[in-house]
Amino acid sequence: MKRIAVLTSGGDAPGMNAAIRAVVEQGLHHGIEVLGVRFGYKGLVEGDFIPLSIADVHHKVKRGGTMLYTARYPEFREEATQLLAIEQLKKHEIDGLIVIGGDGSFGGALALTKLGFPAIGIPGTIDNDIPGTEYTIGFDSAMTVALEAIDNISDTAASHNRTFVVEVMGRHAGDIAIWAGIAAGSDAIIIPEESYDIADVARRVDAGRAAGKDYSMIVLAEGVMGVEEFVKQYSEVAPHQSVRGVTLSHIQRGGNPTGRDRVFATLMGAKSVDLLIHGQSGIYVGIINEELAVFDIVETLEKTKHKVREDLYELNLELTERIID
Amino acid sequence: MKRIAVLTSGGDAPGMNAAIRAVVEQGLHHGIEVLGVRFGYKGLVEGDFIPLSIADVHHKVKRGGTMLYTARYPEFREEATQLLAIEQLKKHEIDGLIVIGGDGSFGGALALTKLGFPAIGIPGTIDNDIPGTEYTIGFDSAMTVALEAIDNISDTAASHNRTFVVEVMGRHAGDIAIWAGIAAGSDAIIIPEESYDIADVARRVDAGRAAGKDYSMIVLAEGVMGVEEFVKQYSEVAPHQSVRGVTLSHIQRGGNPTGRDRVFATLMGAKSVDLLIHGQSGIYVGIINEELAVFDIVETLEKTKHKVREDLYELNLELTERIID
Amino acid sequence: MKRIAVLTSGGDAPGMNAAIRAVVEQGLHHGIEVLGVRFGYKGLVEGDFIPLSIADVHHKVKRGGTMLYTARYPEFREEATQLLAIEQLKKHEIDGLIVIGGDGSFGGALALTKLGFPAIGIPGTIDNDIPGTEYTIGFDSAMTVALEAIDNISDTAASHNRTFVVEVMGRHAGDIAIWAGIAAGSDAIIIPEESYDIADVARRVDAGRAAGKDYSMIVLAEGVMGVEEFVKQYSEVAPHQSVRGVTLSHIQRGGNPTGRDRVFATLMGAKSVDLLIHGQSGIYVGIINEELAVFDIVETLEKTKHKVREDLYELNLELTERIID
Amino acid sequence: MKRIAVLTSGGDAPGMNAAIRAVVEQGLHHGIEVLGVRFGYKGLVEGDFIPLSIADVHHKVKRGGTMLYTARYPEFREEATQLLAIEQLKKHEIDGLIVIGGDGSFGGALALTKLGFPAIGIPGTIDNDIPGTEYTIGFDSAMTVALEAIDNISDTAASHNRTFVVEVMGRHAGDIAIWAGIAAGSDAIIIPEESYDIADVARRVDAGRAAGKDYSMIVLAEGVMGVEEFVKQYSEVAPHQSVRGVTLSHIQRGGNPTGRDRVFATLMGAKSVDLLIHGQSGIYVGIINEELAVFDIVETLEKTKHKVREDLYELNLELTERIID
Repeated sequence: MKRIAVLTSGGDAPGMNAAIRAVVEQGLHHGIEVLGVRFGYKGLVEGDFIPLSIADVHHKVKRGGTMLYTARYPEFREEATQLLAIEQLKKHEIDGLIVIGGDGSFGGALALTKLGFPAIGIPGTIDNDIPGTEYTIGFDSAMTVALEAIDNISDTAASHNRTFVVEVMGRHAGDIAIWAGIAAGSDAIIIPEESYDIADVARRVDAGRAAGKDYSMIVLAEGVMGVEEFVKQYSEVAPHQSVRGVTLSHIQRGGNPTGRDRVFATLMGAKSVDLLIHGQSGIYVGIINEELAVFDIVETLEKTKHKVREDLYELNLELTERIID
Repeated sequence: MKRIAVLTSGGDAPGMNAAIRAVVEQGLHHGIEVLGVRFGYKGLVEGDFIPLSIADVHHKVKRGGTMLYTARYPEFREEATQLLAIEQLKKHEIDGLIVIGGDGSFGGALALTKLGFPAIGIPGTIDNDIPGTEYTIGFDSAMTVALEAIDNISDTAASHNRTFVVEVMGRHAGDIAIWAGIAAGSDAIIIPEESYDIADVARRVDAGRAAGKDYSMIVLAEGVMGVEEFVKQYSEVAPHQSVRGVTLSHIQRGGNPTGRDRVFATLMGAKSVDLLIHGQSGIYVGIINEELAVFDIVETLEKTKHKVREDLYELNLELTERIID
Repeated sequence: MKRIAVLTSGGDAPGMNAAIRAVVEQGLHHGIEVLGVRFGYKGLVEGDFIPLSIADVHHKVKRGGTMLYTARYPEFREEATQLLAIEQLKKHEIDGLIVIGGDGSFGGALALTKLGFPAIGIPGTIDNDIPGTEYTIGFDSAMTVALEAIDNISDTAASHNRTFVVEVMGRHAGDIAIWAGIAAGSDAIIIPEESYDIADVARRVDAGRAAGKDYSMIVLAEGVMGVEEFVKQYSEVAPHQSVRGVTLSHIQRGGNPTGRDRVFATLMGAKSVDLLIHGQSGIYVGIINEELAVFDIVETLEKTKHKVREDLYELNLELTERIID
Repeated sequence: MKRIAVLTSGGDAPGMNAAIRAVVEQGLHHGIEVLGVRFGYKGLVEGDFIPLSIADVHHKVKRGGTMLYTARYPEFREEATQLLAIEQLKKHEIDGLIVIGGDGSFGGALALTKLGFPAIGIPGTIDNDIPGTEYTIGFDSAMTVALEAIDNISDTAASHNRTFVVEVMGRHAGDIAIWAGIAAGSDAIIIPEESYDIADVARRVDAGRAAGKDYSMIVLAEGVMGVEEFVKQYSEVAPHQSVRGVTLSHIQRGGNPTGRDRVFATLMGAKSVDLLIHGQSGIYVGIINEELAVFDIVETLEKTKHKVREDLYELNLELTERIID
């Protein structure tokens, strides 16, 4: 193995650059040259390759986003397009590909592998919603930004003795909501994976106030519904509360990655190079029990649902289920 | 003067607590007791007073929001309500009042002064939109939070080579937009005080891309229009660009105040106590040329418009007016 | 069980307040009153107890330090002193005690249990050096602050093309050094658990420069030696490099806790109450594989050494062992 | 004027990159090409020039340090060396030079101007110690980092009821100490410009404790003495206090520049280009009363001392001079 390539695909996530840096450093360690593919699978098909040196990546380890850019490219589902990509890879004498992205992006890596070109995935998505791995690059950073925003909002909420509903990212997964919600000491957390009774939510908020809280916080995952709709429904069951809704949206995606995101991205980036060298492909590198693990992409794509941490969700229910005499 | 009171009114702003702390410390320095009024003018009328000690305020200097709470209370425009407030103040043997808030809140301080009870204002609003003073408590903090959010968003914008429109606070004043916009190196800044040509905005964005930028940033003050409407209009003139809109909303209001906000809040808080002691009232303390200054509230309320920094606005126009051959 | 108490002991760690809050909320959930003991074991002996309500703790979840204060109190190793503590606990009709602190603090909890008073520990120390649990409250926050400081320093290091040695906390454990060091993309990490060859460190730094890096970063755990001594030794083997040393010291201990610290602190705080209710004592609650686990304090105290993550350490060696032709 | 160059000299300061970006953008606006000189005056003499495009600078506006690097180069005080620089400038067909740095660096700009090559200065130093201008690039960012560190430390200080002495940067100027000190609500601020009585400092700390503070903070500018020496002296007059010393050192220099630093850097960067075009030289651009101003370098270098804000210093004395009965 003389030369490999790395690309990022799907939504950007803080820590992707740390993974790219690890791929480059580990490649160099093994005497392998590393090319970056710009704009994901689109750039792969178009041959948008750039050489990656230590100098290119050493500052990037601490920055959010992806230095290789990313792009939507549904065309890559077609085998004809995949074959064009392999043509480009061969033309540039590349022996293996590392794909950093979500499970959608892993589909492309799997397709290339099936067509004879070895590819390996690294989970990069702020939603933490990839079946198999317990950790995806960007989740810790996104959760951190969401939490800081909720902390900020709580200053205003307290000043006005208000209830705030904060919509965080997570179309199918409530992970950001659960983690940021518990960390913020919020009164209720609403996620796509669990049903809820809006009157019960209001009751918990009232109980918190009765117990002496000077503001209330509800964290809502975007996959449940938009915050405006939620506030509307909520105001009907809790007309006595002063409620405001806020959507955090894109700010959650950016900023410098946390240490945790950078460390796991580094672990997985280096491991993916080792696996390619050892002839593996059609897999992705992830984390189980805080340690590196390898997952089959076929199985991953067949699984329908990411598992949310129910213990945390239940814990929050418990903590806000106060006894009122 | 044996005992004074302090309240916060209107929207909360980071740094208000630093002003409260300075009032308490300076009061104590002069042997004056300081009471806090909770929930602004509403609490004033209801007699919601609490004693304030060094122990109560010394941690608060670094925190956002207002430890005294704030509330909307349009009833205070009525003289009958104002007289109730004076009754409460006299009942608690209070000799003077300090009001931290926007120019709307200063109206109450003026009314009390006219009815014979000495009151002094301190400008506290993130919008920086009070006529007279060049500085209001909270502006620097809000601008800082807005800028960090825009920086975060730029990571994502660059990763996807996108144009982002970020709506920041400022109903009548473009100050947050101008400062954060220039600091972020944004392509265009849209504020209520200046007209703009949306096609020219798109042209500047295109010129930036032609010059090598890998993302574009437009900062929009909320007073112009909502970001969704703006993105809609913008997409019509620039259909070739990939545009996203984000509203920062309430996150701008919270968080620990910046050093600048705390220092000026401290200066103004201490000064307001000195002025009360020297028998002044019906005025507010502000900042001109980085120094303390005193302003007449009557004149302030008669002025219709805050002056935005045109030099900064013009500068940004110049910087983004690139030569394209 | 009608009434329990909670104290913090040893060095403060961000997230301790989140644990206290969870104890209070979970206590209330079970109809149990919670008292806070101020100043650790010292306050326990002196009967420095305060009632803790939801209102007292709900803002604290997001703040560093410990709202209950902490103090050194070697006297608590004496059985006579321990008996005085039990006297105070009984006098205040307290049925169980939760101790948040390091393994030294757990010794006190064990002693009380042996004397017939049920006590349970929660690991709180930024060093992450408690045998058994993989996680201690405060580690993630301290690592985050250390990393941000190293990121800051790298701006200056790059501007001057310098080598910086940054001393981070960790008297016996290299955890902060390893995590922050990898996350920062540092050239070398020096920890108490592993020997090193200072000439090899210099060689790695030179190799990084030869590969195009415009600055170099060495992360040193305080347990190895002071940074001044290290810089002195290092300058002798690498006289051609421009080297500076920095000690982060106490800034690592403070600041708002990260989401991760707050979430695990909350999990462990709630669990400790459940365990007390179920009649358990002489144990501590920790985390294994990201899940709650229970550890015997006797065994913990017998173990001599915390296990550092060797995989991370080895990874960094690999990444900086570049091929130079 | 067809082509100009820009360099950074002396210690790096956050916001220097924003100034460089403004020079490039404003140059382009006027149809002028901009070259960057790497490593300050050293690079000038060695001809280490690089072209600067919009693409090179547009991400840098938000980053600390200097993208052009900086270096010490005392040799530039010799006229022979200065003539070599002019030779390089002429060889590269450069018509004017912009120097971002401290007043020491302005000396070089003045020397070049006297030798017939037009040069203009921009004040960039975190110390805010340049005679004339009220503002230097980097001060607000350094003060912000120092304040955040002090805030962090106060968590620990409070947890242990301790007194902390924090040494901040400022060899000759107490500006960082004064601003961060007041903003942190510190008990005493020790700066090179003002004498102090260490027993009085201890008395203020004691008075704060008597008034209910649960920790004490003393901010010390490095120019007074090292923190270890101060703590030693302090402990002699206040043996009853538990005192710790911390040096912030290099962390103050890095990190993303604040909005204020970026905005003023942008204003000054653009103005410097305009001035060069209008045939001016031997001057530097600064800020008076929050507005652009121009200063003579000769006069600046003759002035011996920067003026610290005495009003802030006096204010802090007043606030901590509590009445104790």
